[in-house]
Amino acid sequence: MASSAISSRDSGNSSQISLKSVREALIRLEDSIVFSLIERARHPYNAPAYDRLYLKSSGSSLAELFVKEAEHLHAKAGRYENPEEVPFFPEDLPSPLVPSYNYPQVLHPAGASVNITKTIWNMYFNELLPLFTAEGDDGNYASTLASDLVCLQAISRRIHYGKFVAEVKFRDAPLDYSSAINNKDKDALMRMLTFERVEEMVKRRVEKKAMIFGQEVTIEDKEDDNVDCKVNPSVVSRLYGDWIIPLTKLVEVDYLLRRLE
Amino acid sequence: MASSAISSRDSGNSSQISLKSVREALIRLEDSIVFSLIERARHPYNAPAYDRLYLKSSGSSLAELFVKEAEHLHAKAGRYENPEEVPFFPEDLPSPLVPSYNYPQVLHPAGASVNITKTIWNMYFNELLPLFTAEGDDGNYASTLASDLVCLQAISRRIHYGKFVAEVKFRDAPLDYSSAINNKDKDALMRMLTFERVEEMVKRRVEKKAMIFGQEVTIEDKEDDNVDCKVNPSVVSRLYGDWIIPLTKLVEVDYLLRRLE
Repeated sequence: MASSAISSRDSGNSSQISLKSVREALIRLEDSIVFSLIERARHPYNAPAYDRLYLKSSGSSLAELFVKEAEHLHAKAGRYENPEEVPFFPEDLPSPLVPSYNYPQVLHPAGASVNITKTIWNMYFNELLPLFTAEGDDGNYASTLASDLVCLQAISRRIHYGKFVAEVKFRDAPLDYSSAINNKDKDALMRMLTFERVEEMVKRRVEKKAMIFGQEVTIEDKEDDNVDCKVNPSVVSRLYGDWIIPLTKLVEVDYLLRRLE
Repeated sequence: MASSAISSRDSGNSSQISLKSVREALIRLEDSIVFSLIERARHPYNAPAYDRLYLKSSGSSLAELFVKEAEHLHAKAGRYENPEEVPFFPEDLPSPLVPSYNYPQVLHPAGASVNITKTIWNMYFNELLPLFTAEGDDGNYASTLASDLVCLQAISRRIHYGKFVAEVKFRDAPLDYSSAINNKDKDALMRMLTFERVEEMVKRRVEKKAMIFGQEVTIEDKEDDNVDCKVNPSVVSRLYGDWIIPLTKLVEVDYLLRRLE
């Protein structure tokens, strides 16, 4: 039920965080990511939503405008008070209308500011989106962009969770990590953070989730499992293997490099 | 892949619509509704988001403010140009920034204005939400309300699809329906629109979807199917049986009563 590794469960002790709770949050986020892709795939690619020339007299695409304004609204409702949430357009966000909620401060302050949303934005729109949407234009740009926002937020949250992963691992072996951090040895850090067997398992699991959540469910049990899925499971596996896992480790390394400041 | 019964597939002939395409859209919307409930259930109930006294100096709840502002943004991106989309707060919506998309005009103009979003709003917040969220407050009101909005929009879209269902059925048997419409005989219309066997099948199917989409997927195949689901499947069955199906029929009757104006 809990969506967060930290905010509710461990709020009694503000510095407490466990690898188990972080893992559970990451596994739950896999479901969110798969659902969000399936929902986006209801619509075709819808190119005008991403074309900077489409909205005359504006220098932005409809997508940029939509995400910026949506983030304004989310900021007013307090979204970015939670250290797990990272905005794509952090400039000029309004203050929350709501009283501040006492989120536990788990991260090291210098590392908390790691933000690779620009990389995620480019990956999502330029590489991922064409892989799982049909060609075409159905005119439903608002609901298309609302779905894009849900995808972006889920993927970004997953990747920036790397900060919490890194913090847990650092606390578990501070001496080993401190030596590599002091030497600014990115390669050594990357090696310490890489577990190929776990990464393969994650890729297989998200592929399976795409098959199960993307199937056509009917009342009759079907014999044939090789049915069309709403999003190709191999695309979801590739999303993790090519982008989410490497970018999460990039966040982890960036976080650790600032961990002793 | 198509999310709509009409907009893309049948756009060659603006008045064409088939029961088969409407049924496919309704079945696809079941998946969206189940996904949206599962995503909302990541967070506990989060009462302050719905409390009119929480935001001082405003007469609204954070939920009202959030949905209103989100609908403004969606209106700018053209959402309500699509006759399948019905806003919760239709007052003072801004004009679209985007050129108008030529949605096929399938509905009778008088019936197109049927809007029961107030009933849906009250049902969702007062009856449904407490049934599938845990008690508690995790502070994540922005992402909670964003999930509420997705739930509301999916449920509302499903219910207001009744207009298209009614239009198809009317075209299929105009004489039978016209007689009941001219007599303003709501009971006769309701009887003509009720197929208990189909309704039972829909309830069983959405219950099964809640089981499949809400399960904890692991790489190992599990023997035990009686695992906890993220949203209780019986709540989803009840959502359809107690609210979605009856409210859809209410929309169908309201639409038909204006069909000959």
